[in-house]
Amino acid sequence: MRTLVQIVIALFVTFSYLYAESTVKLNLLPVPKQIELEEGAFRLNEDFTMAVRGSENQRLYRAATRTLRRLSNRTGLFFSQDFITPQSEKTGDFIIQVNRTGQIKLHEDESYTLDINNEQISLSAETDIGAMRGLETVLQLMQADAEGYYFPSVHIEDAPRFPWRGLLIDVARHWMPVEVIKRNLDGIAAAKMNVLHWHLTEDQGFRVECKTFPKLHELGSDGFYYTQAQIKEIIDYAADRGIRVMPEFDIPGHSTSWFVGYPEYASQPGPYTVERKWGIMDPAFNPARAETYEFFDAFFKEMSDLFPDDYIHIGGDENNGIHWDANEEIQQFKRDNNIKDNHELQSYFNKRLLNILQKYDKKMVGWDEILQPDSPKDIVIQSWRGKESLIHAAKNGYQVLLSNGYYIDLIQPTDYHYLNDPLTEDMDLTPEQAQFILGGEATMWAEFVTPEIIDSRIWPRTAAIAERLWSPGDVRDVENMYDRLETFSFRLEELALQHEKNYLMMLRRLTNNRPTEPLQTLVDVVEPLKIYRRGQAREFTQHSPYTRVMDAARADQKVAREFRALMEQFLADGAHNPEMAEKIRQHFYLWAKNHSQLVDIIEVSPILREIESLSEDLQKISLIGLELMDALTAGEKIAPDRGEDISTVLKAAKKQRGQVELQVVEPIEKLLAYVSK
Amino acid sequence: MRTLVQIVIALFVTFSYLYAESTVKLNLLPVPKQIELEEGAFRLNEDFTMAVRGSENQRLYRAATRTLRRLSNRTGLFFSQDFITPQSEKTGDFIIQVNRTGQIKLHEDESYTLDINNEQISLSAETDIGAMRGLETVLQLMQADAEGYYFPSVHIEDAPRFPWRGLLIDVARHWMPVEVIKRNLDGIAAAKMNVLHWHLTEDQGFRVECKTFPKLHELGSDGFYYTQAQIKEIIDYAADRGIRVMPEFDIPGHSTSWFVGYPEYASQPGPYTVERKWGIMDPAFNPARAETYEFFDAFFKEMSDLFPDDYIHIGGDENNGIHWDANEEIQQFKRDNNIKDNHELQSYFNKRLLNILQKYDKKMVGWDEILQPDSPKDIVIQSWRGKESLIHAAKNGYQVLLSNGYYIDLIQPTDYHYLNDPLTEDMDLTPEQAQFILGGEATMWAEFVTPEIIDSRIWPRTAAIAERLWSPGDVRDVENMYDRLETFSFRLEELALQHEKNYLMMLRRLTNNRPTEPLQTLVDVVEPLKIYRRGQAREFTQHSPYTRVMDAARADQKVAREFRALMEQFLADGAHNPEMAEKIRQHFYLWAKNHSQLVDIIEVSPILREIESLSEDLQKISLIGLELMDALTAGEKIAPDRGEDISTVLKAAKKQRGQVELQVVEPIEKLLAYVSK
Repeated sequence: MRTLVQIVIALFVTFSYLYAESTVKLNLLPVPKQIELEEGAFRLNEDFTMAVRGSENQRLYRAATRTLRRLSNRTGLFFSQDFITPQSEKTGDFIIQVNRTGQIKLHEDESYTLDINNEQISLSAETDIGAMRGLETVLQLMQADAEGYYFPSVHIEDAPRFPWRGLLIDVARHWMPVEVIKRNLDGIAAAKMNVLHWHLTEDQGFRVECKTFPKLHELGSDGFYYTQAQIKEIIDYAADRGIRVMPEFDIPGHSTSWFVGYPEYASQPGPYTVERKWGIMDPAFNPARAETYEFFDAFFKEMSDLFPDDYIHIGGDENNGIHWDANEEIQQFKRDNNIKDNHELQSYFNKRLLNILQKYDKKMVGWDEILQPDSPKDIVIQSWRGKESLIHAAKNGYQVLLSNGYYIDLIQPTDYHYLNDPLTEDMDLTPEQAQFILGGEATMWAEFVTPEIIDSRIWPRTAAIAERLWSPGDVRDVENMYDRLETFSFRLEELALQHEKNYLMMLRRLTNNRPTEPLQTLVDVVEPLKIYRRGQAREFTQHSPYTRVMDAARADQKVAREFRALMEQFLADGAHNPEMAEKIRQHFYLWAKNHSQLVDIIEVSPILREIESLSEDLQKISLIGLELMDALTAGEKIAPDRGEDISTVLKAAKKQRGQVELQVVEPIEKLLAYVSK
Repeated sequence: MRTLVQIVIALFVTFSYLYAESTVKLNLLPVPKQIELEEGAFRLNEDFTMAVRGSENQRLYRAATRTLRRLSNRTGLFFSQDFITPQSEKTGDFIIQVNRTGQIKLHEDESYTLDINNEQISLSAETDIGAMRGLETVLQLMQADAEGYYFPSVHIEDAPRFPWRGLLIDVARHWMPVEVIKRNLDGIAAAKMNVLHWHLTEDQGFRVECKTFPKLHELGSDGFYYTQAQIKEIIDYAADRGIRVMPEFDIPGHSTSWFVGYPEYASQPGPYTVERKWGIMDPAFNPARAETYEFFDAFFKEMSDLFPDDYIHIGGDENNGIHWDANEEIQQFKRDNNIKDNHELQSYFNKRLLNILQKYDKKMVGWDEILQPDSPKDIVIQSWRGKESLIHAAKNGYQVLLSNGYYIDLIQPTDYHYLNDPLTEDMDLTPEQAQFILGGEATMWAEFVTPEIIDSRIWPRTAAIAERLWSPGDVRDVENMYDRLETFSFRLEELALQHEKNYLMMLRRLTNNRPTEPLQTLVDVVEPLKIYRRGQAREFTQHSPYTRVMDAARADQKVAREFRALMEQFLADGAHNPEMAEKIRQHFYLWAKNHSQLVDIIEVSPILREIESLSEDLQKISLIGLELMDALTAGEKIAPDRGEDISTVLKAAKKQRGQVELQVVEPIEKLLAYVSK
């Protein structure tokens, strides 16, 4: 008996056996294209073996071995197999069959078919890359019951919706050591993404060893750069997981660090020092000098050899033109060449660069500023300023990636990113035009992250974006996504990602090793300032401390989100469900009594002083919450005077302190409105 | 007013101000040679600046910058200084003055003098290495009160007791990536240790890229080895922290992995495969063939260039001689050369190696087996089998290191290692002989550790060994050490060490992301089987899962240790202190009710099944504990029959399950004895 699962309904599958009824919860993320759930299960035991067929490439053998170890580590089973190699047995409980070695290129086949029954697991794919995507699915399928570990019988056919599913990591504003990149590549692979967009240069740092122009990394990095050996190590590590690595060298703006060693290519004489502040800076390459293009020719020659990917990203964003306008030579150049403004001048610059990249067999990618009326058709546009630019590019026959709405540094909730679709019907694109939309990328800009925090800013939210880019477009159930995301996030820890474990560690440091519970109770319901408000609230630089409450606090805090949903449901149901009422009260009790415990810790932890009044406000609004619940129970109304007083307190509680905000004020406002009406 | 602190009394210093009485707790570890505490404090604020004088070497500037960042990260203060460089101001609130750049060599000067008063912090040292040791002391001195962060006024003169204070990390039995080594180098520096002993080769893996004999790493490592670029990266990282890196190539035994690529140098023809099991293996180099020494000549030539340290460790331990005895060529060689047994043969082998090492300007270190009656005097012996060999070596004029008693892989309690002194009066050594004792090394053998666990096996216990080797010999107060160690351990987290945060992470995995509290309540009072009993309890290999309860459980669990101390004190005081009695009861209540919560989790987490009966036993003995406490309160005796029944239950509870043991049975036995008498 087979049950075709309607994936859009979510992955809680109820189906009937002949003698029993059972609910199977499949924690798959991203949701596969097609799932058929069958009766039965493959039970895992210590005799379990895996076999690979059809691959001459070591890559898939290594991936199979990693899968075996991950299963062993989760289950505690002592499998007898150690390494799976081309010399291993070609038969086993789990057979992986591929036709060929995939290329680490855009548009490579990533599809796979998975069959699990009582006897065997079979994974087949055109390429080893597709098989690797399927291995992640197998790992997600594992379940446990009192009898042990098992995989439910299932037939899955899967392939991605978009061919380009990336994560940008900015390693320039804050330096990220090799291991940060490696563990995040494991996360990318787990989410079935396939591009690391490596933002390597900025005003604040030049992070690549350059042999042709060694002063770039010697003077532009404070000693924090990747050697070419490390870059190769990371590219190999990514390729081993079927992930492309696209470097970005952001020019002509965002380039102060280049000019510390080579001021002669800048539009102003310098001297330059590595930038420490955040923002849009004036320095820019001089597009009017032939030497600039000679420099880039030699530079991109070396980088084209170093980075095997077909694409090189040249940035092109946020060049404010101030240094261009102030340079008489550049102004004369514009006049001489009939270039009417800086947009056209940048377009000219880009065309020169494109020629250089083409000379070295590379395709050019840039932020949406690079799209000008006369831009050549073989560039790829990365849309960051808005969806209009995405649609505009596609309609004009340019390949395009969506990043607008995927800015994970802005601390927005997961569902906001999740529902942001690169391709919807209301875009009014022809099927041909729709083909130009290659996919999208989450962007981890690094003003406010360090190696300690970055995982918690990337994960788990990026996995929701990964699902948007992989799964069918009609998979859009937010509640179900949150449910699966929690399991996905938990399992990421087996890949050494630190998004979860660094939370308590940071709270321990903040309390100076005193009990963390009172602080956690508070931080569980606050979030950092969102969008660009953090940088507006105070000045931060490359060397500010990123260890305060606002850095420990995460986006989309679960306790706060669930409390908001609880209140929403309670009020929508008529505010008389006693169980819900009790749950709401329990929250208020906890928060109301928390402040007195936390002040004792703040007293000897001056770093916490900045959130003391926030903690007090949480107490105040919780007492108000209890008062409102009491009124509700008693069937009393809140007097208008009192209602106004309460509104004032609630409004004050919304104010940021230490660049964090309480996330549970709005449901109390709703409660007030309900009780007042 | 100055108060000379008696360090042996510990670091809780009570002293009188003119108008006030205050107790200052200095959390220094290792304890400095001499401390004088003064009235006053240097208060830290955002204007704080540091300056370095007298160093031409970038190393100290980088160390000062790291110190500044660590202070900023702890306090949340936005210091204006970014990088401290040779171009920075030579004046500031914190002045570091050195005379010269230290050499990364044995016997280099590591002393420093530190003065803190209301106005300034002054650190002076002969070498930048001494200054770096002093920077760690400054970081440990920071305190906080309601007014903010400060350093107490103090005068410290400090220097190590022993010149060689090392940590061995075995990266061969289980592979340890670069970042594991780096973060542990930071831990080593924080504990003022100065040697990483890098155990690079074993039966189970050859972990160094070798250009002369590439099949060593290509066939002997399963792909898990350090490139030479990575080795240089680690050596530089260590040198930047004043730490020597001594490589160990363990020969002639422990060498199976070498023979996978080069069976021609083995004593038996092979073929060989990388060993997966643990234990003493038979394969050994053939000492009778000239080609063997030609091989080692070329090998050590390359390695001598790669590793700049003066010392190379050649292992030399646990060669069982079985393959030598079975080789007729070797037997003939012994007869031809009047070599009477395998000990003499190994001595011959070592002498040939010594010649090779001397040719490349290296000094030889080996395990105590290498000391034979005719061994040359310029070798260094590392004593692992017992203190007798240490004394024997010193008396015979050999330089020697203590590792016996510092085997941190054996899960023994911290105080055992702490009280193990390499040089005590009862050794009956002359001052000249005592000089031969260079220090010691903690040894992190890697049968049972992975990158995820290793930090918790090394830290914090290794810091107690570091104190033994740095501080004056009369610093031996165990309780005080434990108190300071807790703070030291907490602060290690700022160096990205994972010993603390991986505990809960592993419990989350074990519960499959269900609430971890019930499991933690159990695991907090169990410890893995100690000494060599774990390997005897069941077979483990390189690919066993190291993710079970026994891997999450740590040595010297604090809850269990404190419970034992509490019971000890309670009974010693006559068992009538009501507060202590109440504390003891609270433990029993918690443990008694825990089992029913834990079984619900075990039901769906089969990996926990193995400790189910242990959890049940904790419940049983806690109920017994309450019964005994009740009897005590009532002034009743336990009847002999009942006493016997209880003894049986307690004895059964001591049995290992899943290779862990309850650590709180013995205090209940003592309670029973008390109530029974």
